[in-house]
Amino acid sequence: MNGFACKASFSPSDFFFAGLAMPMPTNNMLGSTVTPANVMQIPGLNTLGVSMARIDFGPGGLNPPHTHPRATEIIFVLYGELDVGFITTANVLVSMTIKQGDVFTFPKGLVHFQINNGKGPAAAIAAFNSQNPGVQAIAATLFAATPPVSDSVLSKAFQISYQEVDEIKSKLGGKR
Amino acid sequence: MNGFACKASFSPSDFFFAGLAMPMPTNNMLGSTVTPANVMQIPGLNTLGVSMARIDFGPGGLNPPHTHPRATEIIFVLYGELDVGFITTANVLVSMTIKQGDVFTFPKGLVHFQINNGKGPAAAIAAFNSQNPGVQAIAATLFAATPPVSDSVLSKAFQISYQEVDEIKSKLGGKR
Amino acid sequence: MNGFACKASFSPSDFFFAGLAMPMPTNNMLGSTVTPANVMQIPGLNTLGVSMARIDFGPGGLNPPHTHPRATEIIFVLYGELDVGFITTANVLVSMTIKQGDVFTFPKGLVHFQINNGKGPAAAIAAFNSQNPGVQAIAATLFAATPPVSDSVLSKAFQISYQEVDEIKSKLGGKR
Amino acid sequence: MNGFACKASFSPSDFFFAGLAMPMPTNNMLGSTVTPANVMQIPGLNTLGVSMARIDFGPGGLNPPHTHPRATEIIFVLYGELDVGFITTANVLVSMTIKQGDVFTFPKGLVHFQINNGKGPAAAIAAFNSQNPGVQAIAATLFAATPPVSDSVLSKAFQISYQEVDEIKSKLGGKR
Amino acid sequence: MNGFACKASFSPSDFFFAGLAMPMPTNNMLGSTVTPANVMQIPGLNTLGVSMARIDFGPGGLNPPHTHPRATEIIFVLYGELDVGFITTANVLVSMTIKQGDVFTFPKGLVHFQINNGKGPAAAIAAFNSQNPGVQAIAATLFAATPPVSDSVLSKAFQISYQEVDEIKSKLGGKR
Amino acid sequence: MNGFACKASFSPSDFFFAGLAMPMPTNNMLGSTVTPANVMQIPGLNTLGVSMARIDFGPGGLNPPHTHPRATEIIFVLYGELDVGFITTANVLVSMTIKQGDVFTFPKGLVHFQINNGKGPAAAIAAFNSQNPGVQAIAATLFAATPPVSDSVLSKAFQISYQEVDEIKSKLGGKR
Repeated sequence: MNGFACKASFSPSDFFFAGLAMPMPTNNMLGSTVTPANVMQIPGLNTLGVSMARIDFGPGGLNPPHTHPRATEIIFVLYGELDVGFITTANVLVSMTIKQGDVFTFPKGLVHFQINNGKGPAAAIAAFNSQNPGVQAIAATLFAATPPVSDSVLSKAFQISYQEVDEIKSKLGGKR
Repeated sequence: MNGFACKASFSPSDFFFAGLAMPMPTNNMLGSTVTPANVMQIPGLNTLGVSMARIDFGPGGLNPPHTHPRATEIIFVLYGELDVGFITTANVLVSMTIKQGDVFTFPKGLVHFQINNGKGPAAAIAAFNSQNPGVQAIAATLFAATPPVSDSVLSKAFQISYQEVDEIKSKLGGKR
Repeated sequence: MNGFACKASFSPSDFFFAGLAMPMPTNNMLGSTVTPANVMQIPGLNTLGVSMARIDFGPGGLNPPHTHPRATEIIFVLYGELDVGFITTANVLVSMTIKQGDVFTFPKGLVHFQINNGKGPAAAIAAFNSQNPGVQAIAATLFAATPPVSDSVLSKAFQISYQEVDEIKSKLGGKR
Repeated sequence: MNGFACKASFSPSDFFFAGLAMPMPTNNMLGSTVTPANVMQIPGLNTLGVSMARIDFGPGGLNPPHTHPRATEIIFVLYGELDVGFITTANVLVSMTIKQGDVFTFPKGLVHFQINNGKGPAAAIAAFNSQNPGVQAIAATLFAATPPVSDSVLSKAFQISYQEVDEIKSKLGGKR
Repeated sequence: MNGFACKASFSPSDFFFAGLAMPMPTNNMLGSTVTPANVMQIPGLNTLGVSMARIDFGPGGLNPPHTHPRATEIIFVLYGELDVGFITTANVLVSMTIKQGDVFTFPKGLVHFQINNGKGPAAAIAAFNSQNPGVQAIAATLFAATPPVSDSVLSKAFQISYQEVDEIKSKLGGKR
Repeated sequence: MNGFACKASFSPSDFFFAGLAMPMPTNNMLGSTVTPANVMQIPGLNTLGVSMARIDFGPGGLNPPHTHPRATEIIFVLYGELDVGFITTANVLVSMTIKQGDVFTFPKGLVHFQINNGKGPAAAIAAFNSQNPGVQAIAATLFAATPPVSDSVLSKAFQISYQEVDEIKSKLGGKR
C-alpha cells in the first residue's frame, strides 16, 4: 500500500456508495445518527485520503462532542439549522448557528459537536481528509468503554462522586 | 505555516462560508458552474487540508474533463442525475450514472468529468483533501492559455489541422 | 518554513531546554503537573517534528483523560508506578500498570490518561512526533471552555441534569 | 510497506537500470518515445520516492501535453534543443526554449509538454519525486480510453462536432 | 499498512516495553551501549511514527558520530553529564555540555554524537519521530561494512595511507 | 509556504537553470566537483520537492562518502564509468560498477559514494526528492567542522591516536 498498486482489478462500484441518500432514523437517546462512507464502505478510497459521512438530526438532536484522530472535517448543511462548535487547544469555543447550504470546518483532532436547536429535522454531509478518519465520542469513550475506565479516574477528572460516575456509566450503556 | 500558528486572532466566520447555499446560473457555454469553497473563501482552512465546492448543472450541462493537481475529490449528489467518470493511468474509463444522494470518488490527479444527461437540473457537493486543490480544465488549459500553446503542439497532439486548432481556440476564447 | 531555512542565525541553546530537570509541585486539584518542552520552549524544534514533556504525579495524582490532536505519545517512567490507558476508536480500553523504566505508547489522537495509584510520587518523560502536539484535557475542554459549551449539549451528551452540568462547570473553573 | 522493511533480501541490481543508455526509435506518430525507469523497472525504488525516465525526440518530435498525477518533474537535456512548457492553474503558459545541459521544472500535477523544433534529434533525462509518478497523455486519455469517453462529453468540452470527435478518436486509435 | 488496520487483534503489551529500565554494561571498546525500543521491540508502534532508546555511558564513554536516516532525535539526561553535538550542512558544530534532566535536539539526518566527559556513569533517554529511525555509526559504516568499502575510497576521503585505512578497519572489526 | 502561494509573480526563468551544462574543473584534492541545481539556484522549486546536481570526476576522482539528510538520490551516468555504493543500516555495502547511461539509486539518508576508477573523465546527473536535500561529506563533517569536533571523540570513534586525528584535520583543512 501507498508505495504501489493496491488491487489487481476493480470496477466503478469500488468508488461508489448509495448509502447516504436517505435520512436515517433519529429516534435514539441523542436524537442523531451518523452514516459513514469511508474505506469500509468504499474500498476504492484506500490510500486516496478522503471520505464522507451523513449526519441526521431530529429536533433537539445532538451529535455529541467527539474527535476524529486522523482528520479535519468540513460539513455542508443539507437542510435544517445547526448550532456547531469546536474547542481550540487554548480552550476557546468557536461556535456558530449555520443553516441550509452553509459550510463549516472542524480542525484536525479537535473536540467538536453539532446540535439541532431548530424545530424540524436537520441533516448535513461531512467530508474528511482521511479514508479512515476514526471517531471518539467523548462521553461514550470515557463512560462506556470495555473494559471500563475506572471510577477513580473519571471521578477525579470530572470532580464528581463515584455514584455520579456510575449513574452516567449506566445511562450510557457502560459497565462499572 | 504548517509548523506553527498561522494567525494571531480569528473568529468563527474564518471557518464558515455561506456561498454554496444557492444554485448558480448555468446558462453558459458548458451548462455548468463550479463555486469554490477553499482557502481563498475560508481563511481558516489554511494548513487543514480540506475544502469543498458546489457544482450546478443545467439539463445537458457538462463539468468538462479536468484535473485537480493537488487533491482527490469525492462528490455527493444534491439532486438530479449525473454521468460521471475518470480515466486511469492505464487509460481505462471508470464511469457510472449516479443520482440524488449517491457518492463517487475521483482519485488524485486523474482526468475526470460529470455530465447531466437527465431532464432537469442537477447539483453536487464536492470535497477535496487539500485546502487549495487547484483545477485544470483540459480543453481551456490547452486551447485558451495565455500566451497560447502553439498550433504545432496541439495539431500534432490531437492529429488535427492548424485550422481546426484555431477554430477550437476561437470557440474556447483563446488566442492563436 | 518547511520549504526553506527558518532562521538566519542560531546558537546551541536554541536546541536545549533545562526546564524538565526538577519535579514540579503537584498540590493541585488533580495532583499532577505537565511541563512542556516543545517549540514554544525550544525554538530550534521548528519543522523538526519532535518534542517532550515531563509529567509529575503526587500519590493518587491523575493526568486526566486528554488527546493530542497532532501527535502520537510515548512515555518513559522516571520513578514510581502508573496506571496508564488509552481508548481505541472501537471503544476498547487498552491499559496497564507500568513502573520505573517502563515504556508505553498512546496512538495519535486517541483519548488517554495516567494515574498514580502507588504510595509515593511518580514522574514520566513523554515524547511526541510533533514540535507542537497540542493538548485537549477532555473535562476542561467541555466544562471550562470560554465561552462555555451550552448546558443542553453537555446535559444530553453525558445524560446528566443541567444542575449537574453546572456543578461540574463550577468545580472545573468554567462559567455557565 | 512504508511502515517496515519491504523485502527480505536484495542485491545491488535491485537499485540499478541499464535501459536508459541508448536512444529509442522515434519513428512513430508523435516522433517521440518515453522510456521509464520507475519502481516497475527498479524494484529497490519502492517507498524511496524517486524515479527517472528518458525521452527521445526526432526532429519535430512531440512529447504531447500530459500530467503526472503523483509527481513534480525536472528535466536535463542530454542533446538537442527543446521548446518546453507547462500551464498553471491560472491558465498561464510558462514556456522556454532549452538546449543541451539545461534544466527545467514541471510542477506537480500540471499539464506540460516538450517539442523538438530543432533540426536534429534531441533527448532528455527526466526525474520525478515519486517511485510511481503515473502519466496521462491528455489527447489519448480523452480520445482513446477504453471504454471510450462519450462523444457528447468531448464534443461539448472542445466545442467540436461529433464527426470531428470521431475523426480524432480514429486517428488516436480510440473507439467510438 | 498506513492505509488501513495493521493487526486483527492486539493486547496492551503490544504497546509496552520493559527493556529500558536497567543500565546496560558499558565495558566495550567505546564505553557506551544503545538499547533500542522501536517497532522491532514494540509491534504496536507500527505506523505511529515514534520510538525510544536508552543510551548508557561509562566514564569517558562515547556514542560515536552517527546519523539516523529517517528521524530527528531528542534526548533527556537520566543522570550524569554529557558533551553533545551535531554538525550542520554548513559544517558548523553545534555543541553543549548537558547534565541530569536537560533536553537536547539532533535535527533529522545530521551527524551527531554524545560523550561522557564526567567522572561517573551517565545515561539518557532518546526519542525519535519514526517507529524505525535506523542508525549509521559513521566509523563502522565506513571501516567495517561487509563487503568492505575499498581502501582507495577511504584513503582518498580521509587523506590517509592504505596502511592507516587497514589499521582502522582492523581495530573496528572490518575486513580489508 | 506549503499551505499557499509562494510568490506573487514569476517568470519561466524561475524554473530554469543553465549551470549544469558544462563540465567543471576537477583538479582538486578529491578529483571531483559537485554543481548543485536546487532551490538556491532555481527559486521556482520551492515546495515542489525535487532538485538536481551534476557531478564531474577526473580519472581516479572521488565523490567521497556523504549523506543527504532530507532526500533519496538517483543518478544517470552522462559519460565514463563509476564505482558506486551505499551502506545499509545493517552495515551491508551495496555496490556496482556503472557506465554511460546507467541509473543507480541511493536510499534516503544512507552513506554513499562514487569513484571514477576508469581511465578518462566521468560525469553524472543526480536527482533528489527534495528541493533542498542538504549534504554532509562525512570526512569533512567530522574533521573540518567549525568549531572542531574534539580529538577525544574522533580518536575514540576511529580508534586512532590524537596525532593521527590532527594529521587528518590538517589535511582536510580543519582546525585542532
